[in-house]
Amino acid sequence: MSSNPTPEHILQTGLAFWPAKVLLSAVEMELFTLVAQHPGTLDELQGQLGLHPRSARDFLDTLVALGFLQRVDGKYLNTPATDAFLDKRKPSYLGGMLEMANLRLYSFWGHLTEALRTGLPQNEVKSGGPSLFAAIYADPARLRGFLQAMTGISRGANLGIASKFPWQKYRTFVDVGTAQGDLSVQVALANPHLTGSGFDLPEVGPIFDEYVERNHLAGRLSFKPGSFFTDPIPPADVVMMGHVLHDWDLSEKMMLIQKAFDALPSGGALVVYESIIDDDRKENAFGLMMSLNMLIETPGGFDYTGADCVGWMKQVGFSSARVEHLVGPDSMVVGTK
Amino acid sequence: MSSNPTPEHILQTGLAFWPAKVLLSAVEMELFTLVAQHPGTLDELQGQLGLHPRSARDFLDTLVALGFLQRVDGKYLNTPATDAFLDKRKPSYLGGMLEMANLRLYSFWGHLTEALRTGLPQNEVKSGGPSLFAAIYADPARLRGFLQAMTGISRGANLGIASKFPWQKYRTFVDVGTAQGDLSVQVALANPHLTGSGFDLPEVGPIFDEYVERNHLAGRLSFKPGSFFTDPIPPADVVMMGHVLHDWDLSEKMMLIQKAFDALPSGGALVVYESIIDDDRKENAFGLMMSLNMLIETPGGFDYTGADCVGWMKQVGFSSARVEHLVGPDSMVVGTK
Repeated sequence: MSSNPTPEHILQTGLAFWPAKVLLSAVEMELFTLVAQHPGTLDELQGQLGLHPRSARDFLDTLVALGFLQRVDGKYLNTPATDAFLDKRKPSYLGGMLEMANLRLYSFWGHLTEALRTGLPQNEVKSGGPSLFAAIYADPARLRGFLQAMTGISRGANLGIASKFPWQKYRTFVDVGTAQGDLSVQVALANPHLTGSGFDLPEVGPIFDEYVERNHLAGRLSFKPGSFFTDPIPPADVVMMGHVLHDWDLSEKMMLIQKAFDALPSGGALVVYESIIDDDRKENAFGLMMSLNMLIETPGGFDYTGADCVGWMKQVGFSSARVEHLVGPDSMVVGTK
Repeated sequence: MSSNPTPEHILQTGLAFWPAKVLLSAVEMELFTLVAQHPGTLDELQGQLGLHPRSARDFLDTLVALGFLQRVDGKYLNTPATDAFLDKRKPSYLGGMLEMANLRLYSFWGHLTEALRTGLPQNEVKSGGPSLFAAIYADPARLRGFLQAMTGISRGANLGIASKFPWQKYRTFVDVGTAQGDLSVQVALANPHLTGSGFDLPEVGPIFDEYVERNHLAGRLSFKPGSFFTDPIPPADVVMMGHVLHDWDLSEKMMLIQKAFDALPSGGALVVYESIIDDDRKENAFGLMMSLNMLIETPGGFDYTGADCVGWMKQVGFSSARVEHLVGPDSMVVGTK
């Protein structure tokens, strides 16, 4: 102990499910949506949220101490961040990911040790249920929640791609596994010369169309129904895949990169993005944990480094490929045909 | 959004159960104890820990990225902190708290929303089992684990009390709810003129004695069996209570402070310590979450501010009382009779 290590980081991390669950329960109760409309006193919020008198004050003050609420003159108010991102009535709402984390992932991750020892998923599949995607796509409400979750976790990266990619060189794009279509929407909003489409299973169509119309982009964005397992990817100058490749095993990843290559003209580009792991696998903890989340959620999915993805693209025939950081844990890998 | 808030703190906190569970699973597997003896390659650790090939590399590299392992020339090594605090063979091991968190608290906290709405515990009690303490004390292995957990979470504060309290004015102490006895041990090691005793239920005796003997303090520290509900607190110049008051409701807290008062001579001192909440209830998130943990674990327990505790002490008859910060979230409240 000559270097005088302290245990704080260990104890804080080991108990980090406490602040996580406090925030997830607040999102579940739509507390921030309520407070955005009516900042309230302890008594008022206790009644409106149905909190027990024993717990209400500790719960609200914990949210203050964690930086998610402010308490001013006895009234609880949102912070600028929770007002922007956790009020359901705002288009900037990003709580979908946290709703999914609260409803599904928190309990599945309780079986991480078993997943690490068996290599098997710990979600609905474990009790004989359908696969992740079959389960989600079969239920419209659940599908909408999942697609909103995807928007929540990718908004920052979507804005980054919209501004950092050299869009002036291209005229059309297709977003593969488009979900709500937030990537297409952000790219189209920032680049008025582009037209594009979102490609996903037919069930996604109405949700995509609604989202596009809400953003007044129906004239430039359209939905193309299909499965990237059985159908070709629709041709475009730029093919984008966000949070798609990591869901699948290596042979499925290679198949998808090949289909993207086939959809592009010479000079076209494939943009792959998600929480790409640093090549030395020592820095991007979120990317590595996302890969463990794929262990929890899928039979063969995994996240990967920029070097991995560049190698796969070159193997398929892309003439060049490069990695560019976007925001937080997210980077994009751009391959040019 | 004029102040440009970002969602990173929200998303990181909401998913903070990921790094928590990675660390807890590593502690569960005794990974750091293994690595302390034999730093190993991926293949070696995969075999020794029984990890599946799909998960091993992501798991170990996540621990690197989170700062709990180092990877040098292809071998995984502990960091100075994990070597000191998570190697079970070292007396500085603090993983007991994390073992308990992994085994019990992670899943109980999954029901936080229900606890917030009902005010009821979410542990074994919920399925008709015994109370927290009845369940723990009935099973020697579980009791030992719980007592080690208490040592793990209080070591830093124990060292602070041993050095910061004006021990030169006193000759004897009793530690109420002594558990393994780490507070008594640290106080006695730092203050050779003191003799003291640990007061707890009889089941704790052998575990206390073993711990005291391991620290070569059997000549100055002894165990006094008893219940602070049915027996008086043994008399001493200083009465200490760490992580005790927060387990109980207000009337039980007052009864315990009264018994401490009765055990002291004039001029004697009561030292209460745990993660005392700041008086404005806006800063000490850990203390507030510990109070929510008492909601999860007990029928009436709660944590409290320094001002709360000073008020209770004065109400019972202490002539003065003050709050002093120890380390991290922990403070002590010192009342003088």
